[in-house]
Amino acid sequence: MPDTTAPYLRNDTGIRLAVEEAKALLGDRLSTAQAVRDQHARGEDYFTPAPPDAVAYALSTEEVAAVVKICARHKVPVIPWGTGTSLEGHVTAPTGGITIDVSGMDRVLEVNASDMDCRVQAGVTRKALNAHIRDTGLMFPVDPGADASLGGMASVCASGTNAVRYGTMKENVLGLTVVTADGNIIKTGGRARKSSAGYDLTHVYVGAEGTLGIITEVQLRLYGVPEAMAAAVCQYDDLQSAVDTVVTVLQYGIPVARMELLDEAQMEACIAFSKLDGLQVKPTLFFEFHGSEAGAKEQAETVQAIAEEHGGSRFSWATREEDRNRLWEARHNAYYACLAMAPGKRGWATDVVVPISRLTECIVATKQDIAENGLYAPICGHVGDGNFHCCIMLDPDVEAEKQAAHDFSKRLVDRALGMGGTCTGEHGVGIGKIGSLMKETGEAYAYMRRIKQALDPDNIMNPGKVVAL
Amino acid sequence: MPDTTAPYLRNDTGIRLAVEEAKALLGDRLSTAQAVRDQHARGEDYFTPAPPDAVAYALSTEEVAAVVKICARHKVPVIPWGTGTSLEGHVTAPTGGITIDVSGMDRVLEVNASDMDCRVQAGVTRKALNAHIRDTGLMFPVDPGADASLGGMASVCASGTNAVRYGTMKENVLGLTVVTADGNIIKTGGRARKSSAGYDLTHVYVGAEGTLGIITEVQLRLYGVPEAMAAAVCQYDDLQSAVDTVVTVLQYGIPVARMELLDEAQMEACIAFSKLDGLQVKPTLFFEFHGSEAGAKEQAETVQAIAEEHGGSRFSWATREEDRNRLWEARHNAYYACLAMAPGKRGWATDVVVPISRLTECIVATKQDIAENGLYAPICGHVGDGNFHCCIMLDPDVEAEKQAAHDFSKRLVDRALGMGGTCTGEHGVGIGKIGSLMKETGEAYAYMRRIKQALDPDNIMNPGKVVAL
Repeated sequence: MPDTTAPYLRNDTGIRLAVEEAKALLGDRLSTAQAVRDQHARGEDYFTPAPPDAVAYALSTEEVAAVVKICARHKVPVIPWGTGTSLEGHVTAPTGGITIDVSGMDRVLEVNASDMDCRVQAGVTRKALNAHIRDTGLMFPVDPGADASLGGMASVCASGTNAVRYGTMKENVLGLTVVTADGNIIKTGGRARKSSAGYDLTHVYVGAEGTLGIITEVQLRLYGVPEAMAAAVCQYDDLQSAVDTVVTVLQYGIPVARMELLDEAQMEACIAFSKLDGLQVKPTLFFEFHGSEAGAKEQAETVQAIAEEHGGSRFSWATREEDRNRLWEARHNAYYACLAMAPGKRGWATDVVVPISRLTECIVATKQDIAENGLYAPICGHVGDGNFHCCIMLDPDVEAEKQAAHDFSKRLVDRALGMGGTCTGEHGVGIGKIGSLMKETGEAYAYMRRIKQALDPDNIMNPGKVVAL
Repeated sequence: MPDTTAPYLRNDTGIRLAVEEAKALLGDRLSTAQAVRDQHARGEDYFTPAPPDAVAYALSTEEVAAVVKICARHKVPVIPWGTGTSLEGHVTAPTGGITIDVSGMDRVLEVNASDMDCRVQAGVTRKALNAHIRDTGLMFPVDPGADASLGGMASVCASGTNAVRYGTMKENVLGLTVVTADGNIIKTGGRARKSSAGYDLTHVYVGAEGTLGIITEVQLRLYGVPEAMAAAVCQYDDLQSAVDTVVTVLQYGIPVARMELLDEAQMEACIAFSKLDGLQVKPTLFFEFHGSEAGAKEQAETVQAIAEEHGGSRFSWATREEDRNRLWEARHNAYYACLAMAPGKRGWATDVVVPISRLTECIVATKQDIAENGLYAPICGHVGDGNFHCCIMLDPDVEAEKQAAHDFSKRLVDRALGMGGTCTGEHGVGIGKIGSLMKETGEAYAYMRRIKQALDPDNIMNPGKVVAL
């Protein structure tokens, strides 16, 4: 068994042979052009770009399997690529190899409206899927900020603003087609709504970040578009009151569809970036209510009452579809709004989750930490899940900025772990959070490594991520 | 690596030494009495009893770990035992070894009411947990027929009548304490509501049926007891109309809490066993509605209208808590009601799930199969999940009865798999469904075996179940 934590050196000979064979297989869809390699050198993160030796534009599961078989034969790294919007260095190629870009695998393979499920190729994005099923009265709710590919979303166990009501990718992937590290094609899960049939391979690959195999197709749950949907904005004079509102709403068990926090720095960025007229630079909650007409109204009235008790403003409503869309588009663009506030800088988005009862304490302490250390790090978050992000803006070429961000991130993770939380709620581990993962999982980390060794004994699948140093 | 599919012979010397060492460790809590071994020779199933060589009554995670370490040293089978209510031979000891009975690990370790989660020892039963938290306004909804242990429920990925609304154990286990095959103690998951932190070890052990390690503690989601709960019974002249009602309710997206089908044979057994006065021997649906007063009423009215369109009777209501409890107690006792109808026989409960759009076709064809083959096999099921059970009554000593049940079960699994379903929705694989699992998973089965080999290389954890022949 190889030691996946050992420094993993470039296999130059193997790479040369694998690229040649892949070229023979794919022709023009195997590119070694520098520009293409550079485009695939990192995601939307602050990591040092690390281009692969070639990019394979695969169009089918069988092509992915053929490329993986070539790479397996020569023990060459394989890096999966969907939209390149990941945030923890997942798509970098630190020791080279072949990146398999599945963005061309963009077909919705089946929609079973009466069973409320569908099957898509891995390169279909969340927005493309929702556009495709618009006429069915169904929707797919998981919505990270980026218009990410569904294969990538499954790979990092993404979530977004709707998870408080509809769950994360973990709850919404019914099954997968996976190309294993030896280039075999397997199917996990299926169309049944529940199953106790053997080990839960679906959940082994969901969140494995391409380190155990490449997801090429995803079977997903869909949901009926609710009869009534209404969004509302509520503003506060202080952050603590906003967070306390969230905690109370959850403890009442109100099935809100979305409940998002933006601190005053994040609001300033979003107002500028998304032209949110009429909103103030103050800590703010965005809500959305789904249900029957009567049900959504009942939820909204109860939440408004709770918000007022905590000093929130009267709700500013967005009931027309275009207003709701504008509001959530602004929320989804929060990261890009921060980037626009700091031209030339890159973003480092933290991603802790804590139990709801500790959320106020954790956010207030973090806010103080940001102030004390003079960072520019707007906060936003899926606070209904106990999850929030600080978007630290930094110039990765300035060592002091990088170090300050690193130290802040470490304190934040320690704070969250000390409260029974996790170091990442939806961004994944990549190369950025391996140390945090080891701290969080302790003895259990060794068993993750055993699974890696069992399913990818030559450590070719996205090496250096999740369970490697 | 051992071949887990090879015949696994008794390790007599190892067993003798392991039992001696465990005796020295546990004293009176290690029993080799024949009566105790016989009590632990099988679950509530039709399998040939296979007693272990000794039963260890562990009282802590550390004791479980100590016994496993002894067994690991001598390469002796370890079989976990909660309440012994499993249905697929999970708790048999076909090649002997030590059964670890965790029923004495019955403490609720923490209840975090404001975060709606708790941590229990594996031997706490679902009813004991709900009794413990009664005063908090919270409930734990997963409810298989038996009052099973929560460790056992996690191990087979149990569900029950509430899964259509609240999910199965898969959705409700936040984290675990596990004793691994080498006797180490690891923690998986945690108290965060969501996490992307590395491989999802929680879901590796949930549903692994004790074949990868022993679950000793379970962190669970809890739910607020709804403001309003009402149950209703609706009867039909034919099975198809009842199933069609279910399909329509699901397609309307009505968030029913429970939606259970009992065919006329099952109703006859339940009326006799549970004294359900006023109900007829007809295909029947049991419903439950949870929500605010207004919300539950709105759901019930819509469902009543759908039921009437399909020829259902007026709802017979159970709104008082004691009436609701009586109704669901009767449903939970469906299996025992079948046993009471056929004194001296054992039950063989099938457990397929199909996509909802195929449910009517699958149940109608199965009903016809039962009639054509002269079986006594009442049908009941969690039809909101597409899951139903046929409870075949048989005398396991009469080869022809066993063969007929086996052939029927095989046809049923083939029918469900042909419709995109699964061979087991909530009972698990055990020793009874290994062939079905291989058929269902195809190429993927080999990767389940790799995980088994990685986490239990000496094949001591509940050997012969899930991934062995």
